[in-house]
Amino acid sequence: MIIAVDAMGGDHAPSSIIEGVYTALQTFPDLTVHLYGTEAEVRPLLHDLERLQFLATTEKIEADDEPVRAIRRKKDASMVKMAEAVKTAQADACVSAGNTGALMAAGLFIVGRIDGIDRPALAPTLPTIDGKGFVMMDLGANSDAKPEHLEQFAMMGSIYASKVRGIESPQVGLLNIGTEDTKGNELTKNAFQLLTNSPAIHFVGNVESRDLLTGVADVVVTDGFTGNMVLKTIEGTAGAFFHMLKGAFTSSAKAKIGALLVKDQLRGIKNTMDYTEYGGAALFGLKAPVIKAHGSSNANAIFNAIRQARTMVEFDVCGTIERVAKGETLS
Amino acid sequence: MIIAVDAMGGDHAPSSIIEGVYTALQTFPDLTVHLYGTEAEVRPLLHDLERLQFLATTEKIEADDEPVRAIRRKKDASMVKMAEAVKTAQADACVSAGNTGALMAAGLFIVGRIDGIDRPALAPTLPTIDGKGFVMMDLGANSDAKPEHLEQFAMMGSIYASKVRGIESPQVGLLNIGTEDTKGNELTKNAFQLLTNSPAIHFVGNVESRDLLTGVADVVVTDGFTGNMVLKTIEGTAGAFFHMLKGAFTSSAKAKIGALLVKDQLRGIKNTMDYTEYGGAALFGLKAPVIKAHGSSNANAIFNAIRQARTMVEFDVCGTIERVAKGETLS
Repeated sequence: MIIAVDAMGGDHAPSSIIEGVYTALQTFPDLTVHLYGTEAEVRPLLHDLERLQFLATTEKIEADDEPVRAIRRKKDASMVKMAEAVKTAQADACVSAGNTGALMAAGLFIVGRIDGIDRPALAPTLPTIDGKGFVMMDLGANSDAKPEHLEQFAMMGSIYASKVRGIESPQVGLLNIGTEDTKGNELTKNAFQLLTNSPAIHFVGNVESRDLLTGVADVVVTDGFTGNMVLKTIEGTAGAFFHMLKGAFTSSAKAKIGALLVKDQLRGIKNTMDYTEYGGAALFGLKAPVIKAHGSSNANAIFNAIRQARTMVEFDVCGTIERVAKGETLS
Repeated sequence: MIIAVDAMGGDHAPSSIIEGVYTALQTFPDLTVHLYGTEAEVRPLLHDLERLQFLATTEKIEADDEPVRAIRRKKDASMVKMAEAVKTAQADACVSAGNTGALMAAGLFIVGRIDGIDRPALAPTLPTIDGKGFVMMDLGANSDAKPEHLEQFAMMGSIYASKVRGIESPQVGLLNIGTEDTKGNELTKNAFQLLTNSPAIHFVGNVESRDLLTGVADVVVTDGFTGNMVLKTIEGTAGAFFHMLKGAFTSSAKAKIGALLVKDQLRGIKNTMDYTEYGGAALFGLKAPVIKAHGSSNANAIFNAIRQARTMVEFDVCGTIERVAKGETLS
């Protein structure tokens, strides 16, 4: 299996990317990586070329580039070349920690959309306090959505949860502002009806954002605006808490001693909430797996994103979505 | 000044309500309370009738009552009578910890809407880690909103922040999924243009949900669906953290000792995040102040909600909104 990796994306590129690639190569003997990046920056960091092919590129998509224009104009960018490798079947999947919008554009315009899926969706696996996690989409690939898009998200998320996460008959929840069937805005009220009547999924009804972290469904569907908003609210609230905890635990000598005694437990909490353990966000609805690793990814996050891409290829997630979108019934 | 209070709403009614009322009466010598509730439940808890008038009602709106129907049919409900007291100018403002939807219906159909305001909005003051707090609206009075509603929210929130919270030229932010001017869905993109051109407010642009708790603006406007979603996400994430902290701190003898040493600091964090200190959620756009105290309000939360109603009357927030909605310029 060949996975194409963008060495130039993310805050810690290319060093963390390369470190993550080497961990993945050591872990998975069936894996070959095609690494795309700038010669002068990447080459000096490569110490072993077994199952690792380096392809030098001359351009780089920046975090603040306008996505579609960047993809169209920077024809020799590492991200563009990586996506083209997937398009031309030189690689089975691709991973980047770069500009999210540009990666979505590359997915849409280069890798290509599956027939029958109107909109690709960005779907990370998010943590829950029981460590099980859940898949949520769309997290921001499209700001406005129609009810039928949410139904497609539910189908794609169910396939992923069952194939990759090994959950039999995954429970699908609709993110809403109340659990009652009649709650919500125009979008969620109409989506509720569609999901209730959808034969391809196991719909459990409306779920509330306050219950997400305790694990309320295996797949949670929402429009990209709301999903992105909720994800950033969780991040912000968690960040504010750690900030306050840090302040509290250094406020006196007594508190410092107390903090030392509970530091293993605090690290445990941080690890439970650590998105890097769950891999990146997969872009669903494209002809091949495209994984967006978080912009601040460390080597471990990159390793997990590659592992996720590998599992999606192994279990043919994209092929299955394509067949179900055509109307085939899942066996 | 007379404030009408619903003794029958909320999880701890009527005892917490009455306790909160007595604290308010002790604190504010200019305050008279008209208390509406069921004779058999309320009367035994009253020990002093100075500046407290008890008005017996025979019906009660339940948490799961359908809002509009409840308001229309239960004509002798404590909440309905309380709202009618405001409507007929027997009271200056009203406070209830009962069914949110029913209170909004009572506000809209009994107290009445200010001319020029299309939709009332539910607006709590939310905590920030610097203890300053911010006003956010709409938190769920209306699920779907138009750009012009958000502009009205911005105007009303600015008046409240300046009159009640004493903030000169309050900064108004538009809740969005990115800080760039062009980000968002159809609603926020259009609202951004309106807010940019609005002379009555000090618009600082898009703000992200991940920055809310660190204090990014004095007033944050959003549609009711998104606002409610974000509020519940903050609640849920905070709850999950305290749950994990509790588990961590009781997991070993060593951790238990550590927890003892930091317990004052942890209580400090809990207090910082404690909504009850900030009063209730005000319903803006009505002819008189209507305050929704949280359903799980304790006596302190009720006291703060009454204090908030009192301040809104004192500074004539509703009258000011009415004048600005008519086109008058704020002096």
